[in-house]
Amino acid sequence: MKMIIAIVQDKDSNRLSNLFIEANIRATKLSTTGGFLKSGNTTYMIGIEDERVDEVLELIKDSSRTRQQFMTPPVNLDATMDATASYPVEVQVGGATVFVLPIDSFLQF
Amino acid sequence: MKMIIAIVQDKDSNRLSNLFIEANIRATKLSTTGGFLKSGNTTYMIGIEDERVDEVLELIKDSSRTRQQFMTPPVNLDATMDATASYPVEVQVGGATVFVLPIDSFLQF
Amino acid sequence: MKMIIAIVQDKDSNRLSNLFIEANIRATKLSTTGGFLKSGNTTYMIGIEDERVDEVLELIKDSSRTRQQFMTPPVNLDATMDATASYPVEVQVGGATVFVLPIDSFLQF
Ligand code: NI
Ligand code: NI
Ligand code: NI
Repeated sequence: MKMIIAIVQDKDSNRLSNLFIEANIRATKLSTTGGFLKSGNTTYMIGIEDERVDEVLELIKDSSRTRQQFMTPPVNLDATMDATASYPVEVQVGGATVFVLPIDSFLQF
Repeated sequence: MKMIIAIVQDKDSNRLSNLFIEANIRATKLSTTGGFLKSGNTTYMIGIEDERVDEVLELIKDSSRTRQQFMTPPVNLDATMDATASYPVEVQVGGATVFVLPIDSFLQF
Repeated sequence: MKMIIAIVQDKDSNRLSNLFIEANIRATKLSTTGGFLKSGNTTYMIGIEDERVDEVLELIKDSSRTRQQFMTPPVNLDATMDATASYPVEVQVGGATVFVLPIDSFLQF
């Protein structure tokens, strides 16, 4: 068994939770902030058999890897207070930080 | 020293916190959700001497092991809108998931 | 790489967060309660290269070590309802509990 601790962006966490449920992987969720990922994030704690570690990592990677996304910024008002056109800009979203930890024992009562 | 991470059901956590206090075991509590246990749950982080690991596991097991409990469901209204008798049913409550982790060092400042 | 889990008092956590930012150390924050430190506390999870572990421990120690502080208790009213003088008393604040954990792997997507 291994313990996997994964920190993902809040906006990716619903998708990841669903993937875990489909794959019958039990994950405990913690609400966390800052640090590795700039915006609000969610941390998952997972206990998993050694032979399924890669499967879990694949799910995390697929649902949260860094990607470019177009976002339209709010309308700008220039110095003359005329509204200027607001063009979509490309921003980076997603990203996950993952620790795989050795464990001495894993018990369920 | 070992680090013990224990996820227990919210309804078992007061009892466990009291057992830890009585046994002079310092545990830090995190509010967590879903995953290993269906309902709301509480996660404890504990730093403990190797020779006291079994004692901690025993306390967790005693306060939160899976058990059957009778619960009376809310009154049912059948198709004719007559209230039918609501009988107590047996449900499973409790349960804990525990990780024992090796640590390189444990420090207090 | 190592994983450092540090539990510090809430009142020391702003200072520590700033030190981490200055030193370019990415830390994820969890809100935690009780246990090692009596009052509200904050837990940090940090992934760090082996050669920087001591630097992180130094920052934690510097920002949160146990120290004496003078505090003026609220005014007392004695039995005759006369306000008696309230003298500053020395109280112990701060303190941190730190786990350094080995990790099998550390990934960023
Ligand atoms: Ni294993
Ligand atoms: Ni040990
Ligand atoms: Ni290492």
